[in-house]
Amino acid sequence: MPRRLYELCGADERLRFSPFCWRVIMALVHKQLPFESVPWHFCEKDALAFSGQEPPQARKVPVLEDEDGTVVSDSLEIMKYLDRTYPEHPLIGTGQARARLDFIRHWSETQLAPAIMTCVIADVHDVLTPEDQAYFRESREARLGNRLEEVQDLEAGKERLHQALSPLRALLADSPFIDGEGPGAGDYLAFGMLMWGHITGRHVLLDEDDTVQAWFERLLARADKAGIEHVRAADINGYVTG
Amino acid sequence: MPRRLYELCGADERLRFSPFCWRVIMALVHKQLPFESVPWHFCEKDALAFSGQEPPQARKVPVLEDEDGTVVSDSLEIMKYLDRTYPEHPLIGTGQARARLDFIRHWSETQLAPAIMTCVIADVHDVLTPEDQAYFRESREARLGNRLEEVQDLEAGKERLHQALSPLRALLADSPFIDGEGPGAGDYLAFGMLMWGHITGRHVLLDEDDTVQAWFERLLARADKAGIEHVRAADINGYVTG
Repeated sequence: MPRRLYELCGADERLRFSPFCWRVIMALVHKQLPFESVPWHFCEKDALAFSGQEPPQARKVPVLEDEDGTVVSDSLEIMKYLDRTYPEHPLIGTGQARARLDFIRHWSETQLAPAIMTCVIADVHDVLTPEDQAYFRESREARLGNRLEEVQDLEAGKERLHQALSPLRALLADSPFIDGEGPGAGDYLAFGMLMWGHITGRHVLLDEDDTVQAWFERLLARADKAGIEHVRAADINGYVTG
Repeated sequence: MPRRLYELCGADERLRFSPFCWRVIMALVHKQLPFESVPWHFCEKDALAFSGQEPPQARKVPVLEDEDGTVVSDSLEIMKYLDRTYPEHPLIGTGQARARLDFIRHWSETQLAPAIMTCVIADVHDVLTPEDQAYFRESREARLGNRLEEVQDLEAGKERLHQALSPLRALLADSPFIDGEGPGAGDYLAFGMLMWGHITGRHVLLDEDDTVQAWFERLLARADKAGIEHVRAADINGYVTG
């Protein structure tokens, strides 16, 4: 059977915007493992019953179904599975490398994620199917204690994102990638988060001359080369970008 | 000859407050290598002539003079030297581990350092010798474009520090140290920066129940156990802490 990746998508199924799915897409590109993308929406809990995630409301993507039928969910578990099963070109590494990756993961989740959320949370809503929109608004507004449209603040979010990216910006003065001469899981964790904003947002979040933007484009070029689509909502809907 | 570490100190030579020297102190403790501390002040450029750093105004500590007479300056170079010369218990590691350490270093320098500076920059001035005070004020005020007393803002600095520490705080929910089950260079880079504020500041910068504070104290206990003094300015001068 073909290798399949179940991926979150928008009403237009070309819109793949989950930061956690992008981690795995880049990990599969890294390992040079071809795969078929299976579009999935938030409300399609039944379609993930095969993944063994219980209760149904806890079912999430990414879920990888490998060629031999092995099923793995959770982006980090999938990366670990890929390193175990296809050990060439390690993603995560071992010992100190693995421990320090956790620091980068927590940086991307505690600093990049809230900054990007502030930039695009209402834009994310707008790309979803009507059923997913209702689910997303209810669950996120309960968590945030505010309307999505009140939380989204592009200028404040961009400022926060600029500050959150300071370690990456400093690192890129000496190194082409977080993981060294070539990219690895460290890069993909941060890249995935930025793709969330890139795909859903009406606006470009980084300055054109930011070295982080150049790094982001180097990684995007790797996805391109592997034939991975990365259509933006702004491209489909004719939103003004800038 | 005994192993010697040239270290920045205050007017009271028990005050060792350089973040870069603390990295090396903890690295020597990590490697279980005893050393003698040689106190050094900013204006004693001549005393570092033996280190080969030129021109004289570029001379800085830490400088390590090892038992065989090898002299190494710069905290990271010293850590690399220690890993090469005493390979047991690696500090930095290789490959992805080394690359990801650079991310942690840039996080500590671009996020922790400015936050702690905002908390204590005028307090740092106050612990120095009169000659060092003049040098410190002139060089730092030129860089900052403002008086030290105007830059120091304890509440704003503590708020910024709390945010900067978010990845470390999240990581400590699952792991006792940045580098995993035991501490390593990842921990020492962040710890050194916090020691700068801990030693010089009039106030405690972290909340008592912050897991980062517990991690900080675990590392401080290691220094204690190795007989490393860490007297605070607040202890000497009877400043009110809180």
